[in-house]
Amino acid sequence: MNYKLMRYVIGWLIIFESVFMCLPAMVAVIYREDAFFAFMLSIGIGMLFGVTLIWKKPQNKQMYAKEGFVIVGISWIVLSIFGAMPFLLSGTIPNVVDALFESVSGFTTTGATILGDIESVEKSVLFWRSFTHWIGGMGVLVFIMAVLPLAGGNNIYLMKAESTGPSISKLVPKMKTTALILYGMYFAMTILEMLVLLIAGAPFFDAVNISFSTAGTGGFAIKNDSLAGYSTTIQNIVTVFMILFGVNFNIYYLILCKKVVNALKNSELRVYLGILFGATLLVAINLQGMFGSFKADMQQSAFQVASVMTSTGFVTADYDLWPEFSKNILVLAMLIGACAGSTGGGIKVVRVMLLIKTLIKELDTSVHSRSIKKIKLNGRFIEHEVIRSVNVFMVAYMALFVVSMLILSLDHLDFVSNFTAVAAMINNTGPGLVAAGPIENFAGFSVLSKLVCIFDMLAGRLELFPLLILFAPSTWRK
Amino acid sequence: MNYKLMRYVIGWLIIFESVFMCLPAMVAVIYREDAFFAFMLSIGIGMLFGVTLIWKKPQNKQMYAKEGFVIVGISWIVLSIFGAMPFLLSGTIPNVVDALFESVSGFTTTGATILGDIESVEKSVLFWRSFTHWIGGMGVLVFIMAVLPLAGGNNIYLMKAESTGPSISKLVPKMKTTALILYGMYFAMTILEMLVLLIAGAPFFDAVNISFSTAGTGGFAIKNDSLAGYSTTIQNIVTVFMILFGVNFNIYYLILCKKVVNALKNSELRVYLGILFGATLLVAINLQGMFGSFKADMQQSAFQVASVMTSTGFVTADYDLWPEFSKNILVLAMLIGACAGSTGGGIKVVRVMLLIKTLIKELDTSVHSRSIKKIKLNGRFIEHEVIRSVNVFMVAYMALFVVSMLILSLDHLDFVSNFTAVAAMINNTGPGLVAAGPIENFAGFSVLSKLVCIFDMLAGRLELFPLLILFAPSTWRK
Repeated sequence: MNYKLMRYVIGWLIIFESVFMCLPAMVAVIYREDAFFAFMLSIGIGMLFGVTLIWKKPQNKQMYAKEGFVIVGISWIVLSIFGAMPFLLSGTIPNVVDALFESVSGFTTTGATILGDIESVEKSVLFWRSFTHWIGGMGVLVFIMAVLPLAGGNNIYLMKAESTGPSISKLVPKMKTTALILYGMYFAMTILEMLVLLIAGAPFFDAVNISFSTAGTGGFAIKNDSLAGYSTTIQNIVTVFMILFGVNFNIYYLILCKKVVNALKNSELRVYLGILFGATLLVAINLQGMFGSFKADMQQSAFQVASVMTSTGFVTADYDLWPEFSKNILVLAMLIGACAGSTGGGIKVVRVMLLIKTLIKELDTSVHSRSIKKIKLNGRFIEHEVIRSVNVFMVAYMALFVVSMLILSLDHLDFVSNFTAVAAMINNTGPGLVAAGPIENFAGFSVLSKLVCIFDMLAGRLELFPLLILFAPSTWRK
Repeated sequence: MNYKLMRYVIGWLIIFESVFMCLPAMVAVIYREDAFFAFMLSIGIGMLFGVTLIWKKPQNKQMYAKEGFVIVGISWIVLSIFGAMPFLLSGTIPNVVDALFESVSGFTTTGATILGDIESVEKSVLFWRSFTHWIGGMGVLVFIMAVLPLAGGNNIYLMKAESTGPSISKLVPKMKTTALILYGMYFAMTILEMLVLLIAGAPFFDAVNISFSTAGTGGFAIKNDSLAGYSTTIQNIVTVFMILFGVNFNIYYLILCKKVVNALKNSELRVYLGILFGATLLVAINLQGMFGSFKADMQQSAFQVASVMTSTGFVTADYDLWPEFSKNILVLAMLIGACAGSTGGGIKVVRVMLLIKTLIKELDTSVHSRSIKKIKLNGRFIEHEVIRSVNVFMVAYMALFVVSMLILSLDHLDFVSNFTAVAAMINNTGPGLVAAGPIENFAGFSVLSKLVCIFDMLAGRLELFPLLILFAPSTWRK
């Protein structure tokens, strides 16, 4: 293990986080809020730690897969701890575990809150919440890579561990340029959403926060009723952007390169849109005019399906009151999740596709025992390695799910609350059902349950391995 | 596809089933019950069909994996249809779908009933219910193989498709002898349980029925309160025998061959007993003296854990009222299930072990990228084929689970009822929670839901592939 490199990367991470905090500090100045001092103090502490850690450059910048996983796992824990400081120091969330929960929920783009009355919170703190979504969505180490030559040419392992999906592809040969392009598109799309929201009549502060939250597919809102109070136009705009941010960013790069046909032929994209449409239709039919007309049902259904499937977690209606079938569709969409290489969470569409393709192939093989077929995706054969990693991902996913549910069930809550709470955490969605439902918050959960939630959110965002590996004894053995 | 061989095997199957029905017919004579005529009519119809089908011997007895799967899948459907006739013709269950549900529940050793007042049912019909468990437990085609040279030497595929677990091993080189030994041990252990129950004071009819039901890990009881009304001694005896019938029968063969040390070294056996003990202890602690003393809590806990983990489904207490943590442990035990090669259902302990071993191996590989380890079980390396089939099994399992839940959710029932009902069906356990709970029955489910349950029970008993394959277009293509 290259501890010196780890120290160096984490040092830069804290420095960058401190720089990021200057933005909410400015918001605090604009609105003359006391939280300004909390931000300044956090920035000071962060800078002190960060500069100390980067003081000595590591001579050996060699990084292997193991270092990549471990550095990303620890980086995200450190990121969350420093990110919790403004909540704690401003007095918004006086409890340490609660502040950490909110910070982790922010960076992992989960969007589950422990705050009851969001509207009473200072604007700069609300801004920091939304901004953590934006930072966490595309990945903070990817961001740093875009700016600094962190670890020579071996950044690929950091990106692999921090990005979503079973396999990542570099857009261009150089990692730094790839990271720059990704963040460029991310930034541009966020600005675009802000502009469209402003045109649709959203107040400036709301447009900024909603855009950050949508871009990271996070789900923190600045109103107690999430997005229910906004106009239908604004809700529809957010629906569209949630869907857009759930798409693999490689697709946008292809479109930028004018390879639109290639982009639209992508099978994950097609299945993703197909599931979104199918689920929206099924739920809308199942709602049977709950919102007055089929069109209104479709709008509500589309918003909610897009919100849970992309793991954003915005809410316009208390879907806990919807029919059982609709709730099941929403839970299923939550589990499937968005596309690989997007800012969204969940198992990811491409993994589900590969699992089903494997199943069909095996059924076929057991019938025609002599035919050995390979699985194809987008016209290319899929490496056996990828299939295996998807299978292992599923096992880890289920194991984490089961253990988390068992621990949560020690509280007084019911099966559905526990099941959907764990699902909402691991998939980084935010709200689940009943006690974890859309109009509830996580303040009532026990400390132990909150710690499990914190672990699950981090594990879910990093797709399990970078976090699980921290607990494998062999990782720390010489 | 060798259709002639299929016809021949199914013919013999119906003849055997008709012969089996002579037993309940005799019970009807003893108790002077009207159901006698229903059984005689069923036997007549069965004989007519059976003899017609076997009239012409197939010249080509060649059987491949495909035929094995398909024949077993169709055989079990035919078995269930003919097995439902006595329920229907005796007027016990006047509805066709309900009668089929009860028959499938019997043969698949699920033990979920649609009967409300079991004690009002004629004794011969109750006997048939219990007897279907016994027939289905070890497998009916395995039984026929023990008596007839069904398909030359290629019976291995039938056994593979009908037995439980990711891989089966022949006890002796000849399939026929293997089948004979298996049924011999099964028969002896059933008689042993009967004797012990009689000594403990159970009435003769009760002892016979409980033994059949335990042996097949079925769960049909002849009392409305399942086993709650029997003495603690009888309940404890049943606990022990449920656990024994959840063990891989290869272990008993090893013991018969005086290889006791080898038998006790079996890692699946150890993990199985470990989970049973651990779950019992956790539940008993969680019950916090609900039954008056820790000893009584342990007894109730042990009975219920053994009942759901072996997929028997007997009940001595309404565990739906137990604390949430206990209910979660029970659901988890239900999903894990018994040992491969036993009469029990569920995912099977060895599959869960292989999944976890794969996960640990992969975590290790991602740390030490150059170490390629193979997975060991019982000191032997596991073939890659087996791991792959376990992974595919899990995908099929989850896919069936999700689709079944979605269809069930179209009814008015809640998430927990649907979730545990599907789990209780696929794992052949019997009762679940809430509306599918231990003191409920499945009469209130809609026809569509019952059909889904019927499919799930059959798919679960045959471990998915033999049933799923019937719906693959390529199976029927020339």
